[in-house]
Amino acid sequence: MMSNKKEILVKGRTISAQNPSVCVPLVGITHDELIETVLELVKKEPDIIEWRADYYERLENIQLVLKTLASIRNAIGEIPLLFTIRAEKEGGQAISLTVQEKIEIMNVVCASGQIDLIDLELFHNKEEITQVRDIAKKHQVLLILSYHNFQATPALPTLLEKCVEAELLGADLAKISVMAQDEKDVLHLLEVTQEANESTAIPLITISMGPLGSITRMFGFAFGSCITFGIGYASSAPGQIPIEDVRQVIKIVQRSLNHSL
Amino acid sequence: MMSNKKEILVKGRTISAQNPSVCVPLVGITHDELIETVLELVKKEPDIIEWRADYYERLENIQLVLKTLASIRNAIGEIPLLFTIRAEKEGGQAISLTVQEKIEIMNVVCASGQIDLIDLELFHNKEEITQVRDIAKKHQVLLILSYHNFQATPALPTLLEKCVEAELLGADLAKISVMAQDEKDVLHLLEVTQEANESTAIPLITISMGPLGSITRMFGFAFGSCITFGIGYASSAPGQIPIEDVRQVIKIVQRSLNHSL
Repeated sequence: MMSNKKEILVKGRTISAQNPSVCVPLVGITHDELIETVLELVKKEPDIIEWRADYYERLENIQLVLKTLASIRNAIGEIPLLFTIRAEKEGGQAISLTVQEKIEIMNVVCASGQIDLIDLELFHNKEEITQVRDIAKKHQVLLILSYHNFQATPALPTLLEKCVEAELLGADLAKISVMAQDEKDVLHLLEVTQEANESTAIPLITISMGPLGSITRMFGFAFGSCITFGIGYASSAPGQIPIEDVRQVIKIVQRSLNHSL
Repeated sequence: MMSNKKEILVKGRTISAQNPSVCVPLVGITHDELIETVLELVKKEPDIIEWRADYYERLENIQLVLKTLASIRNAIGEIPLLFTIRAEKEGGQAISLTVQEKIEIMNVVCASGQIDLIDLELFHNKEEITQVRDIAKKHQVLLILSYHNFQATPALPTLLEKCVEAELLGADLAKISVMAQDEKDVLHLLEVTQEANESTAIPLITISMGPLGSITRMFGFAFGSCITFGIGYASSAPGQIPIEDVRQVIKIVQRSLNHSL
């Protein structure tokens, strides 16, 4: 289907738009809640689990973060783990850490060998991004550079530029997640996905948020998005769909895309 | 989801993009084959059945057409029936009838009271279209004016013009079915659907054909297409998907579009 097949390997699994990975967010607040939730998530057999650590109440305590992380890894076995401290201005929880404090947490978490991917927003300055990129590279953690907009879908050139920027800054994957206000926004996001896939060499994750955009969580892979976020236990963004539904639709769409009528 | 809700009633059923109808083609060659096939189709509980009469071996014999039509109606009960003699140059079977002979068949079939919708290609001249429109109106049969292109997806203005033309010529529904050569074509077709829905007052049926386009058969309704063609028993165009799959995806997409996260 796609002309340019981009693949990336994580824990022996291939992430590609041809066979998109379904990632579920882990959004617990306490250690106990996280462990309880992650056990529920594992039952759904997601391809990737994203620990949205900005929800965790003890994020400032690196020892507790490592303890919780070890428990999460113990529960998920070989499922790839994405570690994200989502910034408040891009949809994350309000936390009082400075950027350098967050980068130090990322450093320790990457060094622990317990995570496979890490997400950082593109709005950070070049020095910060380079710091995280070097940390990730050193510990063989894949870096996702991301752009979120919970209000609107910016124009096509703006979004294409975000993907190119992510690649130039050394990301292994670029992520674009923007709010759809109408059907046109959904088509724009899919157009960006298709075009950015031609102009960049790294795999892309693109999402049109909100009820209208929800269809991109199921069909976006046909235009080149390699990871889709589904609900395993609790939603972490507007328009997320239960993992079972996402998988069911992907299976049917793959069958029809590969059908050589 | 859609801002402008267009609805059309047929046999007490509402056809609208909010709740798209799944139509299955009936493509038998002999009377016996048609009756056998239609019984299989009925089991799938399609919303509409399209008798692709260009496949029927005795189309030149009006008495036999009426006899077969009566048997089909008897088998399908209250399921709306769409009657189509697809022209060879738009994907139909090779038949030796003149346009006037075909129009005479349409006249008799409409007058029989056994069909609910009739399809005519937009390439016919204005007099021919007006003839069929008047016949359809007289017998309260809904007229679909259609445009097919099995090679490519023409530019957006060309396709928008086809929808406007269909409306101006008195169609109750406009149908656009074009071949997708790449992902861009699929997005263009969806863009046409969304824009044509704003610029015309009649409901639309839009399809991107081929494996790549097959996704429009499942989520085109989110952009304003009110009927999708699925496979009940045999395919009649490239990219058609089994009715069960189409229905499953529509159900999931409707749930996610209506979800007010």
